[in-house]
Amino acid sequence: MKVGIIMGSKSDLPVMQDAADILKELGVDFEITVVSAHRTPERMFNYAKTAEERGLKVIIAGAGGAAHLPGMVASLTHLPVIGVPVKSSNSIDGWDSILSILQMPNGIPVATVALNAAKNAGLLAAQIIGTSSEEVTAQLKAYKEDLKKKVEETAKEMEGN
Amino acid sequence: MKVGIIMGSKSDLPVMQDAADILKELGVDFEITVVSAHRTPERMFNYAKTAEERGLKVIIAGAGGAAHLPGMVASLTHLPVIGVPVKSSNSIDGWDSILSILQMPNGIPVATVALNAAKNAGLLAAQIIGTSSEEVTAQLKAYKEDLKKKVEETAKEMEGN
Amino acid sequence: MKVGIIMGSKSDLPVMQDAADILKELGVDFEITVVSAHRTPERMFNYAKTAEERGLKVIIAGAGGAAHLPGMVASLTHLPVIGVPVKSSNSIDGWDSILSILQMPNGIPVATVALNAAKNAGLLAAQIIGTSSEEVTAQLKAYKEDLKKKVEETAKEMEGN
Amino acid sequence: MKVGIIMGSKSDLPVMQDAADILKELGVDFEITVVSAHRTPERMFNYAKTAEERGLKVIIAGAGGAAHLPGMVASLTHLPVIGVPVKSSNSIDGWDSILSILQMPNGIPVATVALNAAKNAGLLAAQIIGTSSEEVTAQLKAYKEDLKKKVEETAKEMEGN
Amino acid sequence: MKVGIIMGSKSDLPVMQDAADILKELGVDFEITVVSAHRTPERMFNYAKTAEERGLKVIIAGAGGAAHLPGMVASLTHLPVIGVPVKSSNSIDGWDSILSILQMPNGIPVATVALNAAKNAGLLAAQIIGTSSEEVTAQLKAYKEDLKKKVEETAKEMEGN
Amino acid sequence: MKVGIIMGSKSDLPVMQDAADILKELGVDFEITVVSAHRTPERMFNYAKTAEERGLKVIIAGAGGAAHLPGMVASLTHLPVIGVPVKSSNSIDGWDSILSILQMPNGIPVATVALNAAKNAGLLAAQIIGTSSEEVTAQLKAYKEDLKKKVEETAKEMEGN
Amino acid sequence: MKVGIIMGSKSDLPVMQDAADILKELGVDFEITVVSAHRTPERMFNYAKTAEERGLKVIIAGAGGAAHLPGMVASLTHLPVIGVPVKSSNSIDGWDSILSILQMPNGIPVATVALNAAKNAGLLAAQIIGTSSEEVTAQLKAYKEDLKKKVEETAKEMEGN
Amino acid sequence: MKVGIIMGSKSDLPVMQDAADILKELGVDFEITVVSAHRTPERMFNYAKTAEERGLKVIIAGAGGAAHLPGMVASLTHLPVIGVPVKSSNSIDGWDSILSILQMPNGIPVATVALNAAKNAGLLAAQIIGTSSEEVTAQLKAYKEDLKKKVEETAKEMEGN
Repeated sequence: MKVGIIMGSKSDLPVMQDAADILKELGVDFEITVVSAHRTPERMFNYAKTAEERGLKVIIAGAGGAAHLPGMVASLTHLPVIGVPVKSSNSIDGWDSILSILQMPNGIPVATVALNAAKNAGLLAAQIIGTSSEEVTAQLKAYKEDLKKKVEETAKEMEGN
Repeated sequence: MKVGIIMGSKSDLPVMQDAADILKELGVDFEITVVSAHRTPERMFNYAKTAEERGLKVIIAGAGGAAHLPGMVASLTHLPVIGVPVKSSNSIDGWDSILSILQMPNGIPVATVALNAAKNAGLLAAQIIGTSSEEVTAQLKAYKEDLKKKVEETAKEMEGN
Repeated sequence: MKVGIIMGSKSDLPVMQDAADILKELGVDFEITVVSAHRTPERMFNYAKTAEERGLKVIIAGAGGAAHLPGMVASLTHLPVIGVPVKSSNSIDGWDSILSILQMPNGIPVATVALNAAKNAGLLAAQIIGTSSEEVTAQLKAYKEDLKKKVEETAKEMEGN
Repeated sequence: MKVGIIMGSKSDLPVMQDAADILKELGVDFEITVVSAHRTPERMFNYAKTAEERGLKVIIAGAGGAAHLPGMVASLTHLPVIGVPVKSSNSIDGWDSILSILQMPNGIPVATVALNAAKNAGLLAAQIIGTSSEEVTAQLKAYKEDLKKKVEETAKEMEGN
Repeated sequence: MKVGIIMGSKSDLPVMQDAADILKELGVDFEITVVSAHRTPERMFNYAKTAEERGLKVIIAGAGGAAHLPGMVASLTHLPVIGVPVKSSNSIDGWDSILSILQMPNGIPVATVALNAAKNAGLLAAQIIGTSSEEVTAQLKAYKEDLKKKVEETAKEMEGN
Repeated sequence: MKVGIIMGSKSDLPVMQDAADILKELGVDFEITVVSAHRTPERMFNYAKTAEERGLKVIIAGAGGAAHLPGMVASLTHLPVIGVPVKSSNSIDGWDSILSILQMPNGIPVATVALNAAKNAGLLAAQIIGTSSEEVTAQLKAYKEDLKKKVEETAKEMEGN
Repeated sequence: MKVGIIMGSKSDLPVMQDAADILKELGVDFEITVVSAHRTPERMFNYAKTAEERGLKVIIAGAGGAAHLPGMVASLTHLPVIGVPVKSSNSIDGWDSILSILQMPNGIPVATVALNAAKNAGLLAAQIIGTSSEEVTAQLKAYKEDLKKKVEETAKEMEGN
Repeated sequence: MKVGIIMGSKSDLPVMQDAADILKELGVDFEITVVSAHRTPERMFNYAKTAEERGLKVIIAGAGGAAHLPGMVASLTHLPVIGVPVKSSNSIDGWDSILSILQMPNGIPVATVALNAAKNAGLLAAQIIGTSSEEVTAQLKAYKEDLKKKVEETAKEMEGN
């Protein structure tokens, strides 16, 4: 049960690394590479078509501007695909990245997360894996508990002022 | 392995019914009801907190305007939550529905689909179930094949003109 | 007659501090802390549900991105809730913060102020307190007079050039 | 303890009537009239300047397009002003109405509600009155309870299907 | 020297027909069919990869929502690709269609025309053909002259009033 | 024949100074000061009401955010009012400034120029003065000629490369 | 002292007629015709270049979509040009019309009015003529008085209810 | 077979140089200069009217804000015109540049590329030239191959980590 993380360009790595980091933290196996829908369409075809047999359960795809990678991968596999709209240098405040990933036609869903929210993409992938893994579910519950505790500590500090 | 479908108002049903229909078509079990984040916050808490023990694996939540239901349910459970931005009558072209579902902070993902795309929410839920169900996977592959055939038939017609 | 100031994250403090400062200047009692709708939903429930008995008359809630805190607090109390859309780092120019606070469904109002305008939130809270406090009303009238005088002085300088 | 409801044009009445209706339902006294910032600026000055002495505690002002009425009334009185952005015929999807009411400079707040949400403006006015009226507070609690019951009934129906 | 016209769905035909009509009017050869990037990705690959050998000189591709067809075809051929953003039923006022066609990364251009402007796509294709065809150039000059005459006639009528 | 330049805040001066500079360059008389619609509404009333008798022929008003100054001045005088949307620190990319100045209701026009385009506001004021001043008209023609020459010189340089 | 009214297409007449009507009402002389920047560029050049000698003092130009007519006419004459953004059938909610008229570079102003606000364009033209015509000034003052009276009558009616 | 590159202002050169560079790299002849629609309208007329006889086959025009250059040149010639929306200093995030170039009326197309994407404009011009030049076609195929190789190398590096 492995997650595939792909991105349209190496320049998306500073954003997409967050997906890898949270998966590592939660003990979920993953692989990470560059697949460009526009510059390497055949590579994208192969990646998506062989994803299931390579043991991938979920694919996280990040891209910016006219971001076609998540939607095209979703068109080529029945696996759940999570799309990360990246606010890249040529993006108009991220609106292009969001709309070209989110607004998929009926029949081909992409699970879209917030702009640059690769960490949430990783968490969502873990939640999907968690639907059939008690281990990952336990990790997710602990993670949630930890988030809560950090806020409570901050609150105490602020109230103490 | 059941999917929970909820919506913020009965007026969202014409949109959200599509999620139920496609799940039925794909043979995935589901339940459907109204849960309002703003008018029945306690009900929402109970729904989300008991979701796992009631056997839900995925939750689909649709809402419009300042749409808080998907994100709040996601804050209350570790299950994957799919958000459907509904273009309701008091919505500004749907931008409010989209942004208040999509732009979740890191830590609490919501898998957002296109505006009014409850069908895709159902498909995504099936894909998630499919990560541990060969039966549902088979259904999804057949569904994809069917989409392709319909386009090819349309193409033949148009080329025949 | 006390005002409660809450924010979704400690990172909102530089913005939200303005609410506290103006309330202090106007002699209105307040308390300030962190309450996250998404990371501490139970804490948010308790905060809102006990607000009246703790003597709060108005609640100011600031949050960014998919900002659910003001609306959810409003769903849990009959007290007036003032929402401050914060332009946080993961926000799309603040549109997400504004729309997810402003566009509340009928039945559950949130009194929304401008992006990052925590000072105005504090003033509005004071105006609300002022509807039953002659002292605060006097403070508000003096504040307004002061704003006027400062502009008139600036005008004299500029005309003198 | 009376609420003043004003609107920039008679054509705003179908929207603004909702504010009057909910105030009547909640037993809050009000007056309603037309005051145009642009066509009757002196009338607006008089209205705002005499509001306090006429017994008004809160003012609800609705306007569309370059909607200056709420902000200008707020500049002329220390009373809390609630702004209702009206999507009028010459409005660009309501964005102009929203931004010209919401984005007030620091010093002069306007409590803005959702596009066309005059009902919420009425509720907010009642909540403000409620901060010093146990009677109105009781009405608001009953109203909230009623909202909840209606959703629960709808839920039962839908689950029964 | 032939133009290929493709569209993502049969429902785009009422818009895309304009491209065919103007090409016919200008005496430029063309073929027209349905190719869906998301439902028939292999068909799209074949269409684009064999376009040159089938004698196509320019490809016009129309699509709506998360419109990936024009950009993906451009990634698969060196021929000039003209993109027509279609305002389809699931589109957010056409912004999604425009941005997901226009905002292509450097290296893979798509010649984008206005929303629903399939007629202009046809004219642009003819202008491209016209760079090496005196016949088509003559047609285009006549077309331009005709546009001018029609305005001048309208002007005379209006001035005569 | 004098132009009045006003701005809502001293912080608008770096933008609004351009209006003064171009009027000086074109030999058009002007006065400049601060008038805040929201902080000094009475001062604004007096300014606008006495504008004609003080010899003003045109008023240039600049403001940012919920920019009410140009429209309110236009409501108080029959003189032509030119509005300059200022992108101030609390503005959402300038959209609020533009829409709250531009979208005036029928009956009360404001001649709006581009975001921060105080220079163009000055030029437009001069053009209006020029409709009854041959001297100013001559200045404007010379200014236009100068713009042309500068571009032609730049072109020569670039072509020489 | 005459006003020239032009529009890019006969289909703009239902909007632009309002400019003619208000000028007639105010006793200002005008001429009206169609001039297309894109279909009759030479005609536009001649119109603008001969405007002064034909006695025009102000030009009102209306256009939709990529609306170049107002700005191009302004580039060809030193007369004040008023731009009316028309929401035509191929326009994206009017944003294209507004931005392509409003956002002129420094040096070449266009006095832009609200979307479809041809009446305000006529009033603004009359205000410009009024800077050197006591007769038109008197008309404008009467018009303003009339606007006020109509609101006051409406107010009486509404208060009487 | 030459490409003409023009821009509205020398300040657009840092963006527009990319068009020249890629054309040089692909061995396509070009000329480059400044032509301002608003400051040198006659020069623009001459440039466009003599373009064909000077041997130009395609024109690339870049401009920002109310960007009229590409559309006006397209109105004056039957040659294909490629428009580059430039995000200049006075632009509202580039939306004005995009919409005033893209949204051309039917009859007068402009082939629009992404914001600041002058490189893609150059590639598109080469693709147009390539429809009748085997040499340029060969260059384009090699360029595409090169893009692919660079991604594949990057992928290897990333996978090697």
